[in-house]
Amino acid sequence: MSEIKILSAEQIESVFTLQDAVEAVEQAYVQKHTGGGQLWPMVFHEFEHGVADLDIKSGNLDAENVFGLKLVSWFGENPGKGHPALYGTILLFDQETGEPRALMNAGAITDLRTGAAGAIGAKYLARADSKRLLMVGCGGLAPSLIAATLYVMPGLERVLIASPRTPEKAARKLAEITDEVDRLLAACGRKRTAAIEAADCLEAAVRESDVILTATPSYAPLIRADWVRPGTHLSCVGADMAGKEELDAALFARAKAFGDDETQCLSVGECEIPHKSGILAGLSAEIGAVIAGAAPGRTSAKEITVFDSTGIALQDLASASVIVKKAASRAIGDTAAL
Amino acid sequence: MSEIKILSAEQIESVFTLQDAVEAVEQAYVQKHTGGGQLWPMVFHEFEHGVADLDIKSGNLDAENVFGLKLVSWFGENPGKGHPALYGTILLFDQETGEPRALMNAGAITDLRTGAAGAIGAKYLARADSKRLLMVGCGGLAPSLIAATLYVMPGLERVLIASPRTPEKAARKLAEITDEVDRLLAACGRKRTAAIEAADCLEAAVRESDVILTATPSYAPLIRADWVRPGTHLSCVGADMAGKEELDAALFARAKAFGDDETQCLSVGECEIPHKSGILAGLSAEIGAVIAGAAPGRTSAKEITVFDSTGIALQDLASASVIVKKAASRAIGDTAAL
Repeated sequence: MSEIKILSAEQIESVFTLQDAVEAVEQAYVQKHTGGGQLWPMVFHEFEHGVADLDIKSGNLDAENVFGLKLVSWFGENPGKGHPALYGTILLFDQETGEPRALMNAGAITDLRTGAAGAIGAKYLARADSKRLLMVGCGGLAPSLIAATLYVMPGLERVLIASPRTPEKAARKLAEITDEVDRLLAACGRKRTAAIEAADCLEAAVRESDVILTATPSYAPLIRADWVRPGTHLSCVGADMAGKEELDAALFARAKAFGDDETQCLSVGECEIPHKSGILAGLSAEIGAVIAGAAPGRTSAKEITVFDSTGIALQDLASASVIVKKAASRAIGDTAAL
Repeated sequence: MSEIKILSAEQIESVFTLQDAVEAVEQAYVQKHTGGGQLWPMVFHEFEHGVADLDIKSGNLDAENVFGLKLVSWFGENPGKGHPALYGTILLFDQETGEPRALMNAGAITDLRTGAAGAIGAKYLARADSKRLLMVGCGGLAPSLIAATLYVMPGLERVLIASPRTPEKAARKLAEITDEVDRLLAACGRKRTAAIEAADCLEAAVRESDVILTATPSYAPLIRADWVRPGTHLSCVGADMAGKEELDAALFARAKAFGDDETQCLSVGECEIPHKSGILAGLSAEIGAVIAGAAPGRTSAKEITVFDSTGIALQDLASASVIVKKAASRAIGDTAAL
């Protein structure tokens, strides 16, 4: 008989901070680069196209001595029935024995580790003197992306938020997003200094930004190549399946592309369409190699850099590991006999 | 927030009977045949060859409105460290919404559903007048295979058990296996009438048996083709990865082969080596088609039939579903907030 720890969304939110997420995701990227972590083949199943699907991402992470999986399902008709569209569940195992260690709600983990991913792209690829941040997309990921980027780049002075399809949404969501950013920063002992405002015009906002984060479900380019000025960095987290794109593919003709996993980036990420249309041969490097100092990132103040975050199991495993340890030290979480 | 049911090995053993397992596995096989259940791609990871590996089998089962996965790991050095070599965990989800429903210890489920699989092969393919059963292998699966076969074929009069590599082990394990068979039958209201004895000689036992069950980890044939008399049925559950075999490949030149999933049978099951050596083109039918009456099974008393059970996720999902329902009706199991 095993004993397994059960951690609910609420319990995870009470211990897991952006600082934890940034440290965990950086570790995950480096482990992927050094071979200390492996991604196993992803399972994807579509119940009905555009209505319901799921994926199972799994792998192992030597540094934390764990393996595990995350199953995330999306049932688009759920909200009409009083259920959230997304459910995510993580199972974590001991890599020494195979014994199950923890069952966790993946929702809170996914939000923070995805915010951390976009921020890490900016931390390693944006110009150090960046002042202006633009968040494209006002959905559930916006607060964690903004907060994590402010956390890793404390020199940022202004944040614009833009909703490309429904521009008035940015102003409507401004207060809610700002409050959540402040809450996330406060949880790691930080107070926001950058102003957050709604953008009036996406094009103008792109033209004056140093760092751009994108997190939309778009299947068509939102940001035109000629809007992006030299020296800009873009971290894109929206594209996670074939056909999705947020950037004009032409931008990749004059940008350096980085990503979390080259195979995923070229098959389902923001790099997919530029790659398939012959504009982009491949990544300049995976981000883990840049963090580890094994590959160059930005090499001039004029370069445009793109970080394509498709999401890898190691981010979840590294995050889940730190959560299990923090929860244990504070006696948080249920324990069940299995 | 979701509520998830947690069911331990002990709780599952208290509700799940061989009768349940036989009904669930028959349903799973039929659903696979009718398309009411799908197997998703299997994930297999080898940490170190011959030392530690795992697989993740997943799929969905419309009749029970569930999807889910089973992760089974094998760490060969565990017993020396005071841990079982095998750990198995099942996660079950609601197919209407994607909401997680249950986390279950897979050990007790795997034993009974595997026993039921071998028995179902015999039920549909063995001669109805079969009297003599031979169990080849005295490991953990022997009791459930014997008991399930006695359950579905109450006309059996004698059971021999044989341990091919260490013949004296059969006599040593006889009492323990017999007790466990009796316990499993008693749990579904049956009393054993067939005598159970240890075989002195594997060849002689094979020559006089009507039904043969094999469950060993063998990588070389244990049963020679010329030992098997016309009219015999063999259900083989041992081979579950490339290279494993229990039957002389030459037997397939004069036997009709059936299986749970043709792709798995021909790539990792008992049929793999006969298929790769050109003796066996493919299955006569999947067992689900035979159960559903869509394909013939045995067509004469002289035929030799083989059922190759490689194990499919639908067996686990169907079993897990019935367990969740029985446990709920008896208020068994923990509930945790997720």
